[in-house]
Amino acid sequence: MIIRPRHNWLRMLFVWRGSVLQQIFPRLLLLGLMSLIVVVFHGEFFNYKIPLNPAPFTLIGVALAIFLGFRNSASYERFWEGRRLWGALLNYTRSLARQVTTMSGLPADSEQVAYFVQLLIAFTYSLNHQLRKTDPTPDLKRLLPPDLVQALLAVKYKPIMILQEMASWVQQRRAAGALDSITFTAFDQNFNELSNIVGGCERIASTPIPYPYSILLHRTVYIYCFLLPFGLVDSIGWMTPLFVVFVSYTFMALDAIINEIEEPFGTEANDLPLNTMSRMIETTLLEIIGKPALTFPQNKEAYISD
Amino acid sequence: MIIRPRHNWLRMLFVWRGSVLQQIFPRLLLLGLMSLIVVVFHGEFFNYKIPLNPAPFTLIGVALAIFLGFRNSASYERFWEGRRLWGALLNYTRSLARQVTTMSGLPADSEQVAYFVQLLIAFTYSLNHQLRKTDPTPDLKRLLPPDLVQALLAVKYKPIMILQEMASWVQQRRAAGALDSITFTAFDQNFNELSNIVGGCERIASTPIPYPYSILLHRTVYIYCFLLPFGLVDSIGWMTPLFVVFVSYTFMALDAIINEIEEPFGTEANDLPLNTMSRMIETTLLEIIGKPALTFPQNKEAYISD
Amino acid sequence: MIIRPRHNWLRMLFVWRGSVLQQIFPRLLLLGLMSLIVVVFHGEFFNYKIPLNPAPFTLIGVALAIFLGFRNSASYERFWEGRRLWGALLNYTRSLARQVTTMSGLPADSEQVAYFVQLLIAFTYSLNHQLRKTDPTPDLKRLLPPDLVQALLAVKYKPIMILQEMASWVQQRRAAGALDSITFTAFDQNFNELSNIVGGCERIASTPIPYPYSILLHRTVYIYCFLLPFGLVDSIGWMTPLFVVFVSYTFMALDAIINEIEEPFGTEANDLPLNTMSRMIETTLLEIIGKPALTFPQNKEAYISD
Amino acid sequence: MIIRPRHNWLRMLFVWRGSVLQQIFPRLLLLGLMSLIVVVFHGEFFNYKIPLNPAPFTLIGVALAIFLGFRNSASYERFWEGRRLWGALLNYTRSLARQVTTMSGLPADSEQVAYFVQLLIAFTYSLNHQLRKTDPTPDLKRLLPPDLVQALLAVKYKPIMILQEMASWVQQRRAAGALDSITFTAFDQNFNELSNIVGGCERIASTPIPYPYSILLHRTVYIYCFLLPFGLVDSIGWMTPLFVVFVSYTFMALDAIINEIEEPFGTEANDLPLNTMSRMIETTLLEIIGKPALTFPQNKEAYISD
Amino acid sequence: MIIRPRHNWLRMLFVWRGSVLQQIFPRLLLLGLMSLIVVVFHGEFFNYKIPLNPAPFTLIGVALAIFLGFRNSASYERFWEGRRLWGALLNYTRSLARQVTTMSGLPADSEQVAYFVQLLIAFTYSLNHQLRKTDPTPDLKRLLPPDLVQALLAVKYKPIMILQEMASWVQQRRAAGALDSITFTAFDQNFNELSNIVGGCERIASTPIPYPYSILLHRTVYIYCFLLPFGLVDSIGWMTPLFVVFVSYTFMALDAIINEIEEPFGTEANDLPLNTMSRMIETTLLEIIGKPALTFPQNKEAYISD
Repeated sequence: MIIRPRHNWLRMLFVWRGSVLQQIFPRLLLLGLMSLIVVVFHGEFFNYKIPLNPAPFTLIGVALAIFLGFRNSASYERFWEGRRLWGALLNYTRSLARQVTTMSGLPADSEQVAYFVQLLIAFTYSLNHQLRKTDPTPDLKRLLPPDLVQALLAVKYKPIMILQEMASWVQQRRAAGALDSITFTAFDQNFNELSNIVGGCERIASTPIPYPYSILLHRTVYIYCFLLPFGLVDSIGWMTPLFVVFVSYTFMALDAIINEIEEPFGTEANDLPLNTMSRMIETTLLEIIGKPALTFPQNKEAYISD
Repeated sequence: MIIRPRHNWLRMLFVWRGSVLQQIFPRLLLLGLMSLIVVVFHGEFFNYKIPLNPAPFTLIGVALAIFLGFRNSASYERFWEGRRLWGALLNYTRSLARQVTTMSGLPADSEQVAYFVQLLIAFTYSLNHQLRKTDPTPDLKRLLPPDLVQALLAVKYKPIMILQEMASWVQQRRAAGALDSITFTAFDQNFNELSNIVGGCERIASTPIPYPYSILLHRTVYIYCFLLPFGLVDSIGWMTPLFVVFVSYTFMALDAIINEIEEPFGTEANDLPLNTMSRMIETTLLEIIGKPALTFPQNKEAYISD
Repeated sequence: MIIRPRHNWLRMLFVWRGSVLQQIFPRLLLLGLMSLIVVVFHGEFFNYKIPLNPAPFTLIGVALAIFLGFRNSASYERFWEGRRLWGALLNYTRSLARQVTTMSGLPADSEQVAYFVQLLIAFTYSLNHQLRKTDPTPDLKRLLPPDLVQALLAVKYKPIMILQEMASWVQQRRAAGALDSITFTAFDQNFNELSNIVGGCERIASTPIPYPYSILLHRTVYIYCFLLPFGLVDSIGWMTPLFVVFVSYTFMALDAIINEIEEPFGTEANDLPLNTMSRMIETTLLEIIGKPALTFPQNKEAYISD
Repeated sequence: MIIRPRHNWLRMLFVWRGSVLQQIFPRLLLLGLMSLIVVVFHGEFFNYKIPLNPAPFTLIGVALAIFLGFRNSASYERFWEGRRLWGALLNYTRSLARQVTTMSGLPADSEQVAYFVQLLIAFTYSLNHQLRKTDPTPDLKRLLPPDLVQALLAVKYKPIMILQEMASWVQQRRAAGALDSITFTAFDQNFNELSNIVGGCERIASTPIPYPYSILLHRTVYIYCFLLPFGLVDSIGWMTPLFVVFVSYTFMALDAIINEIEEPFGTEANDLPLNTMSRMIETTLLEIIGKPALTFPQNKEAYISD
Repeated sequence: MIIRPRHNWLRMLFVWRGSVLQQIFPRLLLLGLMSLIVVVFHGEFFNYKIPLNPAPFTLIGVALAIFLGFRNSASYERFWEGRRLWGALLNYTRSLARQVTTMSGLPADSEQVAYFVQLLIAFTYSLNHQLRKTDPTPDLKRLLPPDLVQALLAVKYKPIMILQEMASWVQQRRAAGALDSITFTAFDQNFNELSNIVGGCERIASTPIPYPYSILLHRTVYIYCFLLPFGLVDSIGWMTPLFVVFVSYTFMALDAIINEIEEPFGTEANDLPLNTMSRMIETTLLEIIGKPALTFPQNKEAYISD
């Protein structure tokens, strides 16, 4: 995720890093050149004048507005739902840490409480790795005892298994008579919430926006942009390349942003900073049980958090 | 559901499989031919010139934008709500599997726990079959004891009956003194959620978007497209067929996508992959009780999950 | 509610039953005739030419798009919320039937359980009758003992009184020591949900979309349509009647659909099929307690469920 | 709130009462006169022709559509959320009345139960008065014992204090051993809901839509309307006043409706009928404890409920 | 937040304070001057006429409508969600105050209850300071005992630590046998809600709308506005500066409002009045335990609450 300070209005016109301009620059260049050629030949090729004007483009405008508008909101909702789920992860791991320190009958600074909190942290990291399809081994080894790590590496749905381990922990406390059914149920409700969070993230990660939408939008945008020079050349002449590039920039850049945030758990510049959030959860959970927070290495690029 | 890797922008313009182009191709061809005839005769038939221009089409544009925009979001919401319900099904079957292993007083690898989990899996498959109106007998036989299968085949609402069986299972545990009212209630709340999921899916399956919307949108789109050549021929001449096909493609393709995802529980290419999701739930539930996951045959078409 | 099979695209253009075309046909005819007269006189009346062209109509288009778009979504949301409430009614009556069979300490086939389920069914029908302002007496007599029917006919909010009766039933079970506070509370939570459903339906039924919206939209649509012939006659001549009827059809038909689904509990063709849903709830509840389902007479018109 | 029967389409064009036309009539008259003058002078003043045409107005159309569309939905959502909160008030007061009659261990027709229900009714009326900034004294005196009224008149947040009184009532029942912690908690959860309802209403009442939106929309609408005659006079001549009034009517009327429903707890014609709803809650709550419903005086204007 | 009385329609056209006009005035002046120059030279520079007309601007209109519409609703949703979270904060602190006075077994006017309520107030203020990145020390010192203040100043997530302290308070009451597990759980559920509120606010504060949207919208708006004079000069001549300033005002003002409310927890004029809300929570909580409300100094500017 990119976090930059707000510049004044003039400087914002010329920001290069962090905008998607880099990515679509070659295509815009191609379009600009094409428009230039169209202008030079007055839209005539092999003595045949291509008869177009702005009117039919406004008809396509209706379709474009619907496609872009829809895909944009649908993608942003996925992005924001992903963020909300990770926000809920923060809330419910905090709540469970609070419960374990005040409801389990154990002192807040005991070994066992610390172990439970480590499970919560490992739960967070393993969800992160599952969503990004990265290797969880280093983080699991750092946080959990070797035999549990071994068991986890053998299963497919690791966060669920860690959740299972937490539930066993509480169940053993109950078996030992340290807490009653009511308190167990209070834990259990928050386990339900964690289960919902895992499932919610898996849902977003496994179900893209229906494929034909992407195809349809992509085609409409690109055919529109490549026909546009012929439609404008008669009425605005030498301004055609400028306007074609301007219009195409807005449509193509939006298409590019949409593609990035549609899959919010990826590692592109505008995706959710799962690593940063995992570390933040680790810090706050450790603080709750009075452990010193870890210091993490700085990001290389100051304004991108991954 | 179609899941394809993202191609580069140029190749995406020519993707054939998985787009809805196949389905509407004949109609587009018909429109293209018609436009060609209109161009050849300069919009004149039997010495009578049909007097049209682009202006009135922009007036219709308002209505089109509202109809398409509305039906598109309403359909997508149905699709996404269906997906959310199946996501919730995953979450709550997992939660119940967790509860039965940690709260029922039985060891996680006992026969009875395995039976309860089989009920959860059978619940999932029978909901799948009810929604798709397919025969649940093979799956039920694979998962449940014969006498229960017999009883289930006699009733209309099978998932509800399996839920009833789960509730009896828990009630018998309580009658045996193995769990108290509080724990029973914790199970019961998740049974409520399963009941909500079944009802939610039935709601989507049984209540389409009001019929007149489909009729109205369909008519507006098709009359618009078939009148369009007469409106464009005077101003863009030989480009008319190209533009008519382009505009019609965007509207008709959207209409076709909407019709597919409006009923998300069907078996068309863009519908929800209920089978894949059922198998995924089976895998994760078996993993929770430490049973080996099943291996399912590969899909024939790599990028479609059914 | 109208449920028709999907026809092929060509036949859908000529569907007559179930579209709202019947309802607005006279007005469209009137408009067509008026346009014809305008064309014949070239927009000139008493030697005075009415000076209009398409441009000002696009200015009104903005307002129209906002009004129609807003009222359409607001109405559809009311329709869909009504449907969701009746879906929740199905879910929670099922859940209560499950609870009474597994939590009340009574055998599932006992008289008392059957009586409780009859109360649930009567609750459903009496809500139906309250919303549609129809006479509940026949259904109440069919389902409940005479003295309760008598008491119910005297009160204004019948579903609430039946809910009260259910709560007393459970309270008597508790007083008899058959269930504890925790189980009572589990019932009570679902009673809360039923109370929310009743209140939600009453809210939709008693609070229309603010009146001035209807007036404003109606006026804008009709003035627009009746001025349109004068705006088009100069540019598209003899095509004017066709286009005016086409444009007016889309706007007026949408206005007519909106008016129908805005009050989803009515008895118009596109309203929610409360009767069908009530019977469905009756069937599934009886199935849960192992009673044979009732057979209901077929609807007269195959594709309309009331 | 205005509730009028649906007229036929022709009569709806001429409804005067209940539309906002009355309110904006003088401004429309002014605009009509101005347009007339512009037409008479052919848009020329002091021999200087004001050069305008419809094109620039379509550019402003984009901004207008966004502003009006946004403020309209935001206002309607406030209106509808206010209505939903009052619907929830009905549901939860009913639920609490059910709980007190079946869970408190007191007979439904006892003094104490009647007192609790009076507290619920007083809660409703005092919320009504707080939101409308009217004097609650008469209603409080009618419903509650004098010493409690005295105490309430001294505090700022009266509904919260009545809620506090209800909680004490239940707490005294528990202290007397008449109900256990579980039942108390069931009450307490519904008290939480009442607390949420009070806070929700206070939120809507105290936080308007950000002020600059109103200013910006207002200015855009009025500048647009007052410049419009100059833009239309050249192309539609003597039809200008008619069209200017028509366009301005749609925009100004929408602006006026938005202003009314934005603050749904006011006493304008289209605001929520808090008095009617309070009386309805009183009626249904009394019915639950078997008390006769009150008869309230008829509203003076039949189709407005306040 | 700005709260001003509604003026009559004429005066609202000339309001200066509280609109964002002040902020964008210099840019509008610049644009007006530029337009004037363009008009004087008839769009010709160095004998070269810049060929533009309104048509291409309507093509950009589509993109602008999508960008502005999307960013506007996304920002307003953030604003309103922030408000809802602070509304929930009011509700749940009130609920906890009610619980502590009626469920903790302590008299409402005891020292210990007062201490718990002080914790709730300190929780509110420390969340306020964390979100606004201001110094919480004075408020903490005013409300809490010195040693707790000391401990809080050492940690990063202060509201969470105060929540932890509240949970310990309740846990000590339980350890002392003053309340049972069920009552503890009732408290615990409201602690979960407070945890969700903190996390929800942190989510909004730490995750802006993806950066490229701001860049893209900003550029589109500004390029559009600076090219506009060339597009209008040929058709509306001397009216160009007026129209360019009018159009630019609507777009730039909207851009400016969006930027303010996007981060609702800031201290700009249109941000949420966290201080006012904190004081309001303090007042109502003190009222619940019968303590006199504090009097706070008046705001300097009457119509701005901070």
